[in-house]
Amino acid sequence: MAHIKSLHDLFLHTMQDIYYAEKQIEKALPKMIDKASNEMLRDGFTSHLEETHGHVERLEEAFRALGEEPKGVECEAINGIIEEAEQIAEEVEDKDVLDAALAAAAQAVEHYEIARYGTLVAWAREMGHDQCASLFEETLGEEKAADEKLTSVAESRLNKAA
Amino acid sequence: MAHIKSLHDLFLHTMQDIYYAEKQIEKALPKMIDKASNEMLRDGFTSHLEETHGHVERLEEAFRALGEEPKGVECEAINGIIEEAEQIAEEVEDKDVLDAALAAAAQAVEHYEIARYGTLVAWAREMGHDQCASLFEETLGEEKAADEKLTSVAESRLNKAA
Repeated sequence: MAHIKSLHDLFLHTMQDIYYAEKQIEKALPKMIDKASNEMLRDGFTSHLEETHGHVERLEEAFRALGEEPKGVECEAINGIIEEAEQIAEEVEDKDVLDAALAAAAQAVEHYEIARYGTLVAWAREMGHDQCASLFEETLGEEKAADEKLTSVAESRLNKAA
Repeated sequence: MAHIKSLHDLFLHTMQDIYYAEKQIEKALPKMIDKASNEMLRDGFTSHLEETHGHVERLEEAFRALGEEPKGVECEAINGIIEEAEQIAEEVEDKDVLDAALAAAAQAVEHYEIARYGTLVAWAREMGHDQCASLFEETLGEEKAADEKLTSVAESRLNKAA
Protein backbone atom coordinates (compact mmCIF):
# COMPACT_ATOMS: atom_id res chain seq x y z
CA MET A 1 0.00 0.00 0.00
CA ALA A 2 3.04 2.32 0.26
CA HIS A 3 2.96 4.23 -3.02
CA ILE A 4 5.27 6.98 -1.81
CA LYS A 5 8.73 5.52 -1.37
CA SER A 6 11.02 8.54 -1.67
CA LEU A 7 11.09 12.31 -1.20
CA HIS A 8 10.88 12.51 -5.00
CA ASP A 9 7.58 10.57 -4.95
CA LEU A 10 6.26 12.83 -2.18
CA PHE A 11 7.36 15.93 -4.12
CA LEU A 12 5.59 14.71 -7.26
CA HIS A 13 2.46 13.82 -5.28
CA THR A 14 2.40 17.31 -3.73
CA MET A 15 2.79 18.87 -7.20
CA GLN A 16 -0.21 16.79 -8.35
CA ASP A 17 -2.15 17.90 -5.25
CA ILE A 18 -1.56 21.61 -5.88
CA TYR A 19 -2.13 21.16 -9.65
CA TYR A 20 -5.62 19.82 -8.82
CA ALA A 21 -6.06 22.66 -6.28
CA GLU A 22 -5.13 25.38 -8.82
CA LYS A 23 -7.64 23.90 -11.30
CA GLN A 24 -10.38 24.03 -8.63
CA ILE A 25 -9.42 27.63 -7.81
CA GLU A 26 -9.72 28.49 -11.53
CA LYS A 27 -13.33 27.25 -11.31
CA ALA A 28 -14.14 28.90 -7.95
CA LEU A 29 -12.76 32.41 -8.59
CA PRO A 30 -15.22 33.43 -11.36
CA LYS A 31 -18.11 32.59 -8.97
CA MET A 32 -16.47 34.69 -6.26
CA ILE A 33 -16.03 37.61 -8.69
CA ASP A 34 -19.78 37.41 -9.51
CA LYS A 35 -20.70 37.54 -5.83
CA ALA A 36 -18.32 40.34 -4.75
CA SER A 37 -19.53 43.97 -4.63
CA ASN A 38 -16.47 45.87 -3.37
CA GLU A 39 -14.47 47.07 -6.37
CA MET A 40 -11.03 46.46 -4.76
CA LEU A 41 -12.11 42.91 -3.96
CA ARG A 42 -13.46 42.23 -7.47
CA ASP A 43 -10.28 43.63 -9.02
CA GLY A 44 -8.15 41.56 -6.65
CA PHE A 45 -10.03 38.35 -7.53
CA THR A 46 -9.89 39.16 -11.25
CA SER A 47 -6.14 39.74 -11.30
CA HIS A 48 -5.61 36.66 -9.12
CA LEU A 49 -7.57 34.57 -11.63
CA GLU A 50 -5.12 35.70 -14.32
CA GLU A 51 -2.21 34.80 -12.03
CA THR A 52 -3.76 31.40 -11.33
CA HIS A 53 -3.65 30.54 -15.05
CA GLY A 54 0.07 31.33 -14.85
CA HIS A 55 0.49 29.07 -11.79
CA VAL A 56 -1.05 26.18 -13.73
CA GLU A 57 1.37 26.83 -16.61
CA ARG A 58 4.36 26.96 -14.25
CA LEU A 59 3.31 23.64 -12.71
CA GLU A 60 3.08 22.13 -16.21
CA GLU A 61 6.59 23.45 -16.92
CA ALA A 62 7.83 21.90 -13.65
CA PHE A 63 6.26 18.52 -14.50
CA ARG A 64 7.98 18.60 -17.90
CA ALA A 65 11.31 19.55 -16.28
CA LEU A 66 11.02 16.31 -14.27
CA GLY A 67 10.07 14.31 -17.39
CA GLU A 68 6.54 13.79 -16.03
CA GLU A 69 3.08 14.34 -17.52
CA PRO A 70 1.08 17.09 -15.74
CA LYS A 71 -1.55 15.28 -13.67
CA GLY A 72 -3.76 16.17 -10.70
CA VAL A 73 -4.72 14.07 -7.68
CA GLU A 74 -7.88 14.86 -5.73
CA CYS A 75 -7.02 17.22 -2.89
CA GLU A 76 -9.42 16.91 0.06
CA ALA A 77 -7.96 20.03 1.64
CA ILE A 78 -8.82 22.45 -1.17
CA ASN A 79 -12.18 20.71 -1.67
CA GLY A 80 -12.99 21.39 1.99
CA ILE A 81 -11.77 25.00 1.88
CA ILE A 82 -13.81 25.80 -1.26
CA GLU A 83 -16.89 23.90 -0.03
CA GLU A 84 -16.82 25.84 3.23
CA ALA A 85 -16.48 29.15 1.31
CA GLU A 86 -19.48 28.32 -0.88
CA GLN A 87 -21.62 27.25 2.10
CA ILE A 88 -20.89 30.49 3.97
CA ALA A 89 -21.58 32.64 0.89
CA GLU A 90 -25.03 31.06 0.64
CA GLU A 91 -25.85 31.98 4.22
CA VAL A 92 -25.05 35.69 3.84
CA GLU A 93 -27.36 38.23 2.17
CA ASP A 94 -25.94 41.64 3.11
CA LYS A 95 -23.40 42.63 0.46
CA ASP A 96 -20.78 44.12 2.82
CA VAL A 97 -20.91 41.02 5.04
CA LEU A 98 -20.71 38.80 1.94
CA ASP A 99 -17.61 40.71 0.78
CA ALA A 100 -16.01 40.16 4.20
CA ALA A 101 -16.83 36.43 3.99
CA LEU A 102 -15.46 36.16 0.43
CA ALA A 103 -12.22 37.95 1.35
CA ALA A 104 -11.76 35.64 4.37
CA ALA A 105 -12.41 32.57 2.22
CA ALA A 106 -9.89 33.76 -0.34
CA GLN A 107 -7.28 34.23 2.41
CA ALA A 108 -7.83 30.64 3.55
CA VAL A 109 -7.20 29.52 -0.06
CA GLU A 110 -4.08 31.71 -0.35
CA HIS A 111 -2.66 30.34 2.89
CA TYR A 112 -3.20 26.76 1.73
CA GLU A 113 -1.21 27.57 -1.40
CA ILE A 114 1.49 29.44 0.56
CA ALA A 115 1.96 26.33 2.73
CA ARG A 116 2.15 23.95 -0.27
CA TYR A 117 4.44 26.08 -2.47
CA GLY A 118 6.69 26.81 0.54
CA THR A 119 7.08 23.07 1.04
CA LEU A 120 7.67 22.45 -2.68
CA VAL A 121 10.40 25.12 -2.82
CA ALA A 122 12.19 23.55 0.17
CA TRP A 123 12.00 20.02 -1.27
CA ALA A 124 13.02 21.17 -4.79
CA ARG A 125 16.12 22.82 -3.29
CA GLU A 126 16.90 19.75 -1.18
CA MET A 127 16.81 17.52 -4.28
CA GLY A 128 18.63 20.02 -6.54
CA HIS A 129 15.63 20.62 -8.84
CA ASP A 130 16.66 24.26 -9.37
CA GLN A 131 14.28 25.00 -12.23
CA CYS A 132 11.30 23.74 -10.20
CA ALA A 133 12.49 25.72 -7.17
CA SER A 134 12.58 28.96 -9.22
CA LEU A 135 9.15 28.34 -10.76
CA PHE A 136 7.57 27.63 -7.37
CA GLU A 137 9.30 30.61 -5.74
CA GLU A 138 7.79 32.89 -8.35
CA THR A 139 4.30 31.52 -7.68
CA LEU A 140 4.87 31.65 -3.90
CA GLY A 141 5.68 35.38 -4.20
CA GLU A 142 2.42 35.98 -6.06
CA GLU A 143 0.37 34.03 -3.51
CA LYS A 144 1.89 36.05 -0.67
CA ALA A 145 1.21 39.32 -2.53
CA ALA A 146 -2.41 38.25 -3.15
CA ASP A 147 -2.82 37.50 0.58
CA GLU A 148 -1.38 40.91 1.49
CA LYS A 149 -3.74 42.62 -0.96
CA LEU A 150 -6.69 40.91 0.76
CA THR A 151 -5.38 42.12 4.13
CA SER A 152 -5.33 45.69 2.69
CA VAL A 153 -8.97 45.29 1.62
CA ALA A 154 -9.85 44.27 5.20
CA GLU A 155 -7.87 47.23 6.57
CA SER A 156 -9.60 49.69 4.24
CA ARG A 157 -12.94 48.44 5.68
CA LEU A 158 -11.51 49.06 9.13
CA ASN A 159 -10.52 52.64 8.26
CA LYS A 160 -13.97 53.23 6.79
CA ALA A 161 -15.56 51.90 10.01
CA ALA A 162 -13.34 54.11 12.23
CA MET B 1 -31.91 30.65 4.59
CA ALA B 2 -29.68 33.64 5.43
CA HIS B 3 -28.48 32.84 8.96
CA ILE B 4 -25.59 35.30 8.86
CA LYS B 5 -27.06 38.79 8.84
CA SER B 6 -24.23 40.93 10.22
CA LEU B 7 -20.46 41.05 10.57
CA HIS B 8 -21.02 40.05 14.20
CA ASP B 9 -22.82 36.86 13.06
CA LEU B 10 -19.97 36.12 10.61
CA PHE B 11 -17.38 36.74 13.34
CA LEU B 12 -19.17 34.37 15.72
CA HIS B 13 -19.53 31.73 13.00
CA THR B 14 -15.80 31.96 12.23
CA MET B 15 -15.00 31.59 15.96
CA GLN B 16 -17.16 28.44 16.00
CA ASP B 17 -15.37 27.20 12.87
CA ILE B 18 -11.90 27.61 14.37
CA TYR B 19 -13.09 26.24 17.75
CA TYR B 20 -14.12 23.02 15.96
CA ALA B 21 -10.81 23.11 14.04
CA GLU B 22 -8.71 23.44 17.24
CA LYS B 23 -10.57 20.47 18.76
CA GLN B 24 -9.82 18.35 15.67
CA ILE B 25 -6.16 19.42 15.85
CA GLU B 26 -6.08 18.35 19.52
CA LYS B 27 -7.11 14.86 18.31
CA ALA B 28 -4.80 14.78 15.27
CA LEU B 29 -1.55 15.94 16.89
CA PRO B 30 -1.04 12.95 19.24
CA LYS B 31 -1.28 10.62 16.20
CA MET B 32 1.28 12.77 14.37
CA ILE B 33 3.62 12.67 17.39
CA ASP B 34 3.37 8.84 17.36
CA LYS B 35 4.29 8.69 13.67
CA ALA B 36 7.18 11.21 13.73
CA SER B 37 10.79 10.03 14.12
CA ASN B 38 12.81 13.25 13.93
CA GLU B 39 13.31 14.59 17.46
CA MET B 40 12.94 18.27 16.50
CA LEU B 41 9.67 17.44 14.78
CA ARG B 42 8.32 15.38 17.72
CA ASP B 43 9.27 18.16 20.15
CA GLY B 44 7.65 20.75 17.88
CA PHE B 45 4.40 18.76 17.67
CA THR B 46 4.42 18.12 21.43
CA SER B 47 4.85 21.77 22.37
CA HIS B 48 2.27 22.78 19.74
CA LEU B 49 -0.21 20.36 21.31
CA GLU B 50 0.26 22.20 24.63
CA GLU B 51 -0.25 25.52 22.86
CA THR B 52 -3.38 24.18 21.15
CA HIS B 53 -4.99 23.53 24.56
CA GLY B 54 -4.29 27.20 25.30
CA HIS B 55 -5.89 28.27 21.98
CA VAL B 56 -9.07 26.40 22.93
CA GLU B 57 -9.10 28.15 26.31
CA ARG B 58 -8.58 31.56 24.69
CA LEU B 59 -11.47 30.90 22.32
CA GLU B 60 -13.67 29.97 25.30
CA GLU B 61 -12.65 33.23 26.99
CA ALA B 62 -13.53 35.16 23.80
CA PHE B 63 -16.95 33.47 23.58
CA ARG B 64 -17.62 34.44 27.21
CA ALA B 65 -16.47 38.05 26.54
CA LEU B 66 -19.21 38.22 23.88
CA GLY B 67 -21.78 36.65 26.24
CA GLU B 68 -21.89 33.48 24.11
CA GLU B 69 -21.56 29.79 24.93
CA PRO B 70 -18.44 28.17 23.39
CA LYS B 71 -19.69 26.05 20.49
CA GLY B 72 -18.14 24.48 17.39
CA VAL B 73 -19.53 24.19 13.86
CA GLU B 74 -18.25 21.51 11.52
CA CYS B 75 -15.39 22.92 9.47
CA GLU B 76 -15.02 21.19 6.09
CA ALA B 77 -11.70 22.92 5.52
CA ILE B 78 -9.88 21.46 8.54
CA ASN B 79 -11.57 18.08 7.97
CA GLY B 80 -10.13 18.06 4.44
CA ILE B 81 -6.65 19.17 5.54
CA ILE B 82 -6.47 16.51 8.29
CA GLU B 83 -7.97 13.77 6.08
CA GLU B 84 -5.39 14.51 3.40
CA ALA B 85 -2.59 14.40 5.98
CA GLU B 86 -3.75 11.00 7.27
CA GLN B 87 -4.10 9.56 3.76
CA ILE B 88 -0.59 10.63 2.81
CA ALA B 89 0.90 9.29 6.06
CA GLU B 90 -0.58 5.87 5.25
CA GLU B 91 1.09 5.81 1.85
CA VAL B 92 4.60 6.46 3.16
CA GLU B 93 6.84 3.85 4.80
CA ASP B 94 10.31 5.37 4.92
CA LYS B 95 10.65 7.29 8.19
CA ASP B 96 12.51 10.33 6.78
CA VAL B 97 9.95 10.72 3.99
CA LEU B 98 7.13 10.28 6.52
CA ASP B 99 8.66 13.05 8.66
CA ALA B 100 8.78 15.34 5.62
CA ALA B 101 5.11 14.53 4.87
CA LEU B 102 4.08 15.13 8.49
CA ALA B 103 5.91 18.48 8.65
CA ALA B 104 4.27 19.58 5.37
CA ALA B 105 0.83 18.53 6.66
CA ALA B 106 1.39 20.45 9.89
CA GLN B 107 2.33 23.58 7.89
CA ALA B 108 -0.94 23.32 5.93
CA VAL B 109 -2.77 23.18 9.29
CA GLU B 110 -0.80 26.16 10.67
CA HIS B 111 -1.53 28.23 7.57
CA TYR B 112 -5.24 27.50 7.84
CA GLU B 113 -5.16 28.79 11.40
CA ILE B 114 -3.03 31.82 10.47
CA ALA B 115 -5.63 32.77 7.83
CA ARG B 116 -8.56 32.36 10.24
CA TYR B 117 -7.02 34.12 13.26
CA GLY B 118 -5.75 36.95 11.01
CA THR B 119 -9.34 37.48 9.83
CA LEU B 120 -10.71 37.27 13.39
CA VAL B 121 -8.22 39.88 14.65
CA ALA B 122 -9.21 42.29 11.81
CA TRP B 123 -12.94 41.85 12.43
CA ALA B 124 -12.58 42.10 16.23
CA ARG B 125 -10.75 45.41 15.79
CA GLU B 126 -13.34 46.66 13.29
CA MET B 127 -16.15 45.96 15.79
CA GLY B 128 -14.24 47.22 18.83
CA HIS B 129 -14.03 43.80 20.52
CA ASP B 130 -10.64 44.65 22.01
CA GLN B 131 -10.41 41.70 24.41
CA CYS B 132 -11.13 39.24 21.58
CA ALA B 133 -8.60 41.02 19.34
CA SER B 134 -5.87 40.63 22.00
CA LEU B 135 -6.67 36.97 22.64
CA PHE B 136 -6.60 36.12 18.92
CA GLU B 137 -3.42 38.14 18.34
CA GLU B 138 -1.68 36.08 21.00
CA THR B 139 -2.78 32.83 19.35
CA LEU B 140 -1.88 34.16 15.88
CA GLY B 141 1.65 34.85 17.11
CA GLU B 142 1.98 31.26 18.36
CA GLU B 143 0.66 29.82 15.07
CA LYS B 144 3.18 31.87 13.09
CA ALA B 145 6.01 30.79 15.41
CA ALA B 146 4.96 27.13 15.04
CA ASP B 147 5.01 27.51 11.24
CA GLU B 148 8.48 29.07 11.37
CA LYS B 149 9.73 26.24 13.59
CA LEU B 150 8.49 23.74 10.96
CA THR B 151 10.33 25.70 8.27
CA SER B 152 13.51 25.41 10.38
CA VAL B 153 13.03 21.63 10.60
CA ALA B 154 12.78 21.54 6.76
CA GLU B 155 15.91 23.72 6.48
CA SER B 156 17.88 21.53 8.86
CA ARG B 157 17.05 18.57 6.55
CA LEU B 158 18.34 20.70 3.67
CA ASN B 159 21.61 21.46 5.46
CA LYS B 160 22.02 17.77 6.27
CA ALA B 161 21.42 16.90 2.60
CA ALA B 162 23.91 19.54 1.36
